[in-house]
Formats: sequence, structure tokens, C-alpha cells
Amino acid sequence: MDREELFRRISVANDKKMVLVVLDGLGGLPLKGKTELETARTPNLDLLAAESELGLSHPIAPGITPGSGPAHLSLFGYDPLRYEIGRGILEALGVGVSVGKRDVAVRGNFATLENGLITDRRAGRIASEKNREIIAYLRTKIDRIEDAQIGLYSGEEHRFVLVLTADGLSDQLTDADPESVGRPLMYARAKNEGAAKTARIINLFIDRLTEELKTFHPANTCLLRGYAQYPAIPAMGKLFKLKAAAIAVYPMYKGLAQLVGMEVLQTGRSIEDQIQTLKKHYADFDFFFLHVKKTDSYGEDGDFAGKMSVIEEFDHWLPALLELRPDVLVITGDHSTPALLKAHSWHPNPVLIKAAFQRQMPLAARLLDAVAVSDRGTRVRGKGQAVEVRGKFGEKACAGGILGNFNAMDILPMMMANALKFIKYGA
Amino acid sequence: MDREELFRRISVANDKKMVLVVLDGLGGLPLKGKTELETARTPNLDLLAAESELGLSHPIAPGITPGSGPAHLSLFGYDPLRYEIGRGILEALGVGVSVGKRDVAVRGNFATLENGLITDRRAGRIASEKNREIIAYLRTKIDRIEDAQIGLYSGEEHRFVLVLTADGLSDQLTDADPESVGRPLMYARAKNEGAAKTARIINLFIDRLTEELKTFHPANTCLLRGYAQYPAIPAMGKLFKLKAAAIAVYPMYKGLAQLVGMEVLQTGRSIEDQIQTLKKHYADFDFFFLHVKKTDSYGEDGDFAGKMSVIEEFDHWLPALLELRPDVLVITGDHSTPALLKAHSWHPNPVLIKAAFQRQMPLAARLLDAVAVSDRGTRVRGKGQAVEVRGKFGEKACAGGILGNFNAMDILPMMMANALKFIKYGA
Repeated sequence: MDREELFRRISVANDKKMVLVVLDGLGGLPLKGKTELETARTPNLDLLAAESELGLSHPIAPGITPGSGPAHLSLFGYDPLRYEIGRGILEALGVGVSVGKRDVAVRGNFATLENGLITDRRAGRIASEKNREIIAYLRTKIDRIEDAQIGLYSGEEHRFVLVLTADGLSDQLTDADPESVGRPLMYARAKNEGAAKTARIINLFIDRLTEELKTFHPANTCLLRGYAQYPAIPAMGKLFKLKAAAIAVYPMYKGLAQLVGMEVLQTGRSIEDQIQTLKKHYADFDFFFLHVKKTDSYGEDGDFAGKMSVIEEFDHWLPALLELRPDVLVITGDHSTPALLKAHSWHPNPVLIKAAFQRQMPLAARLLDAVAVSDRGTRVRGKGQAVEVRGKFGEKACAGGILGNFNAMDILPMMMANALKFIKYGA
Repeated sequence: MDREELFRRISVANDKKMVLVVLDGLGGLPLKGKTELETARTPNLDLLAAESELGLSHPIAPGITPGSGPAHLSLFGYDPLRYEIGRGILEALGVGVSVGKRDVAVRGNFATLENGLITDRRAGRIASEKNREIIAYLRTKIDRIEDAQIGLYSGEEHRFVLVLTADGLSDQLTDADPESVGRPLMYARAKNEGAAKTARIINLFIDRLTEELKTFHPANTCLLRGYAQYPAIPAMGKLFKLKAAAIAVYPMYKGLAQLVGMEVLQTGRSIEDQIQTLKKHYADFDFFFLHVKKTDSYGEDGDFAGKMSVIEEFDHWLPALLELRPDVLVITGDHSTPALLKAHSWHPNPVLIKAAFQRQMPLAARLLDAVAVSDRGTRVRGKGQAVEVRGKFGEKACAGGILGNFNAMDILPMMMANALKFIKYGA
């Protein structure tokens, strides 16, 4: 029996509420001995951690650095090596386009072509308003190539989504993207025979678009990549019998949530707004995915203090979330984005699970941490005396936590268990 | 997607250097509370451990005691349950015989037959020189049985390798080895119909050899076991895009390295020689496997102090290795060989990973260890004072390390990650 078959068999619905908070790119690397999370002032997280189960989770496997797609699939309980989600699908779902089995979704950039060479891969990051004008114009000009229906959707700034709909399409193409400036337009090539038709349509599209946008400098051509067909992922409702909702600001994460059957809730952009949204809909669902993006953005920018500030902002609003008294609360990241690396990384993520029926290891976690944060009021008393320390939620405390190191795709099953939504397997 | 497909997809070559030091059979069991490694005086390893990531790794899975073949496959990043390497293949590669797809390689012992009974399974451990004489003689006498070409190669003392080459061979045979003295010659039996031909040839070979060696007492017959066909393991160059070299003294480990496409470097027999070899070829490869055998040999002999002495010898030469400043350094064992057990064991191995982008848990590891090694000058000072502890690299420190317990086949992926030789998986 594979794990999905197991989940289907043992999942039961009940009225317990689960909240999965994902601080994107949470895990970090130490600067002066402490990571972003360890350096941030997080009194509320620290208190919560002292009465929670802690651990470190690998998004995919040790050593593997994930993109957001596989990292979130894993957090939602799916094997990220079983389902591959193309970026195009994520982008399409993110801009609210539903994608079906006959579709190939593609990420597009408007770009600048001068004297036959790409001089800007983002067309000077044109305003999103301009983007919408161009897309509206193109829709009147290009609606079909061969037998493929052409769908065009604006993203932010220079980004757009192209959806081809026809029979016999494939996503096995090379990127139509020279990847650096000073090179000519790059066309797509089919990776196998089955993709020849799609490659032909994609390349005709590039030529048609470039022809139509002749006078639209700097947005006078496009780059296409991330071709993707719809992956057949079973919905969380089927697999886990959950009524699941997503509270996310950025398109990709809304898209990911929709992909596994979550309902995407309307929300404002701040963490405060997101927690208000959670409160408003708390009665209507039994699983909430609350996604905070900016930890990752600052990490990618190499902004250690910026990343800390988002963590501290979340910490500030944590009591409002705790007021709801979720039966199971998880706070974690989808992957690490250490400011020191300015990129996603392979380092395992801090995980905190707070629920009713659990074993904490408060002293051990505190003791481990005590040594690292001695400037935080930590005291290790001498010989024969009790150890009294104030814990700090962070990577090192999690490394000494009772959950140990484990795979992120086990987080959702652990949430289900703690919510008593899994019955016994076998007699 | 399976893990090998993933590795192929995300591996990139760069100029970072990785060194994997395998102290064979490193893990131990405590005598008077401390293992071989914990008892050994290892100031250099201790210092290094304080700024490294530590953990414990299971060679195959918890509870499984591996032979050298699967244990090394795992260290090289391969799933040891996916590929089975027969001992015959290892021995053949170890004596420098290349083996192909039509071959079955077999481990042979010269043995003594008296009055129809095996009286010595090692023919009195004849001199290697004598072995070479016998093999030279046999080559002139037996070069073909049925349609199988017969290859014969000397090992050390009483050991030799037999390679059969023909179509339709199989390695699914029982050992032709009575396993104790005072029994008659044992012939091979086919485990299935497809192996009938090979069994027939093997048994004809035993009779032919015994006939030819009538006057060669004590080496007047042979035992055969470890039949093996060549396993189709993808090379490290393909899987990980590594240019890999092995610095090993013993044939089996050279053989294992060749099996996964490493170049085997000429080296002297001492650890000092091996480190000199590493220095000499440092520019030419990006992955080095440095294998130290004697830790295991002493462990198998039950010689606790002897095993300690090899660890201390390695510690003595460690600074010379560190002078090369490898980008990623791992020091571990392939499996445990506790002197107390006089055998390989299932206990997970200490693992030390030293690289640039990592989270250490130095103080925590030291503190954990402090409790265990308080007789080593460890001090935990009271209230308000800094904690000063001297760490000791060993099993207990590794058990409290940030890497936790993991599978040895994840070591190579973690090395790749730390050397920035893995790109992101998925968008």
C-alpha cells in the first residue's frame, strides 16, 4: 500500500481545527553564531515553543534545495518527487486561470528586442497597468494558432501567462529564453517527437507577438519558459477528508493551494489582515494554510535584518492567532532561504507543532538553546542545581527537539494525527 | 521521479573540492563508558568537530549490519538495496580485473583435501608467491570449460578470483564451500533453472582444478563462493557530474571505487602516504574518497586499543589534510565495527561534515558531551558566566549533533549541496 492509499483509508473528518503557518524561507544560516530566527526578538514564539514539539524538516530529502512548488506539495502531505508541478501551472493558477487536461500553461516575460538582440529580459519592468493594456490588445489580435486556442493573462510588471488549449499538446520543450542579454531571440525546441506540434505553436506565437508589438518598445517581444501540463494531484478533500482554505497573498501560493483543492480566501496583504481573514472564516474550514511571503523575499535579497523583521512582525500577531485556540498549530517554513546565501537552500527547516496530546521536551530544548543564547537571560546553574533557562525558538532548539530530523511530507500526517483525524491502521 | 533521476537533473560541475574520509568500521561500543573513538586522544578531530555539523548515519537502515560493499555504495550516494554487488565482483575489481556483462566473477580459496575431506579451508595460508605459481600453472591447463572462457587471477595468500565468460551465465548458485573442515568437497547448486549451466561449469571447474593440483598439497583443491554478475551502476561522473578519485590501499575498496567510476590513485600504505597522494592529485579531481582500513581490522580482532591507535594516527595527520582546505570534508565510517563485538555491527556511524554554509551546534554538542566526558577537564560554570567546555568527537556528541540520525546514502547529497553542486529542484 502506498502512503496515499493509507491516508485515504485512515482519514476521518471531525470538527477539530488545524492551522499550518508557513513563513516562507524561514530557515537560515548563522551570522555571529545565530540565524535570522535565532536573532529575532520573538517572545511569543519562544513561549509557544516551550510547550510545543520541535524538530527540523527536510523539504524533499537531505541535501536537496527545493523550489516553492515541491516544497509546498511536501507541506501539504504529498510526495514532491511523485508530482511535478511546472511553473507555468503555478503562475496560471496564481492569476486565477483554471487549467485543464488539454492545456499547456507557460510563463511569459515581456522583453526588449533591439537590432535583433534581447537587451532587457524584463522590458524595463513595465508597470502592471501597461502590462494589462498590452495583454488586452494582444487578445484582440491572437486568439488561435493552428488548432490551439490562445489564452493570455497579465501578471505583475513584465510577467504574463500564456495558456494553449488543444489536443495533443506537450510540455516537453526547451525554454524560449536566451537567459542573458545581448543574445538573439531563443525559440523553443521539442525534447521529443510528441512535443513537435507544441514547439511549432509556441514559436509561431513568439513571432506573431513580436510582429504585433513592433511599436510597443520596450515591451516588444517575449520570453517563454516553464511550460507545464496539469498534474493529476488528488485533492486534500479526497486524500485527507479536509475542508481546506488558503490565506496567501502571492499568486504562486494561491495557485499551489488551489492545485490541491484548497479554497483561496480573499485577504489583505499584511500579516494582521491574514489573521483577520483566518478569524472571519474560522468556522467554515478545518484546515487553514496561512502563507507569509516576505521572510523569503528578504532572504533572497540577503537582508538578514529584513528577514528578522518579518519574523518579529509575525511574532507580534501570533497571540491573535492563538486566541482562536486551534486544535493543531504548525509553524514552519517551506524551505530555508538564508540571507547569507541569498537563495533557497537545502538546510532543514524549524518546525513547531502545538497540540493537545503531545510530548514536549521543554528542558532539553531550553538547555540546548541556553548555551547559544546566553545573552538572552539564560542561566545555567552549577553543580547539583536545577537548570533554569529561557528558551529561544530557532534552528538549534529545533535540532534538539523531540521530533528530531524528519521529512516535511510527514508534517501533515502528524497534524492529522494530533487532530485525531486519522483512525488506527490495521486491526 | 526516483532519487537518481533527481540527482542527474540537479547536479552541476564546479571547481569546489570534496573529500570523503572513511575510517572503516569507525563506530564502536563503549568499554568503561566510552567507545574506541571517544577514548582515543584526538585533539585535531575534536577541534574540527566543534566547528562542524555532526550526526549519526545508518549505513542501510536501522538494525541492518552491512558488509563493505553495500556500506560503501551507500556512502557513494547509491541506494544499497537497489544494487547488489557480489563479493566476486569486488574481488575481481580489487585485483585489477575488469569485468563485463557476460562475466560471472567468483571468489576462490585454495584448500586442502585429504582422504576425501576438506582439512584446511585456506590451504595453510600458502604464500602469495606460491599462489601466483599455481595460478600460472593452472592457466596453462584450464582455459575453457564448455563454451565458457576461464580467467584465473591470484589474490593474497590462499585467495584467487575466477572469472567465467560466456553467454547465458547466472550468479544464482549456492556456495561451493562446506564452511567447516572435516567435510567433503561441496559443489554448487543452481538456485533456479537459468543457473543450471553455470552450476555445471563451476562444478566441472572444481573437478578439473582438483585433478590438476593432485601433487600441490596443501593447495590441492578449491572452495568457490560469492558468484557475482556485474551490476549496472551508473558512474558518479554521470549521476553527480563528479570527477572522482579513490585513495585506498586494500583491493576491495579500490574495486568498489572503480565500480562507481572513480579513478584509483597509486598510493603508499600508510595514512601519511595516502594524504601525500591526496595532495599530489588535489588539482585533478573534485571528489576524493580516502579509505583507511585498519580501524576495521582491529575492530574485527577485538583489539580496542589497536582501533584507538589507528584513529589517533589519523588524527595526527588530519592537519596535513586540512591544509588543503577542502570545500567540503566528511569524516565518517562505512559501518561500525565495535571491538566488543569483533564484527561489523548495525550501530549508526559518527559523521562530521565541515563546509562553509552550515549551522553548527558547537556549544550544544559540547554541552551534551560535557555530561558524558566530565573526566576530560570539562567545566560547566555557574550563573552569569560563560560556559567553557572541551568537546570530544565521538558517538555521543554526534547523537546530539544538528544532523540528527539519517541514512548514509544521504551523505553524498549533503556533500553536493554544501559544495553548491546541486541546483534547485523545481520552481
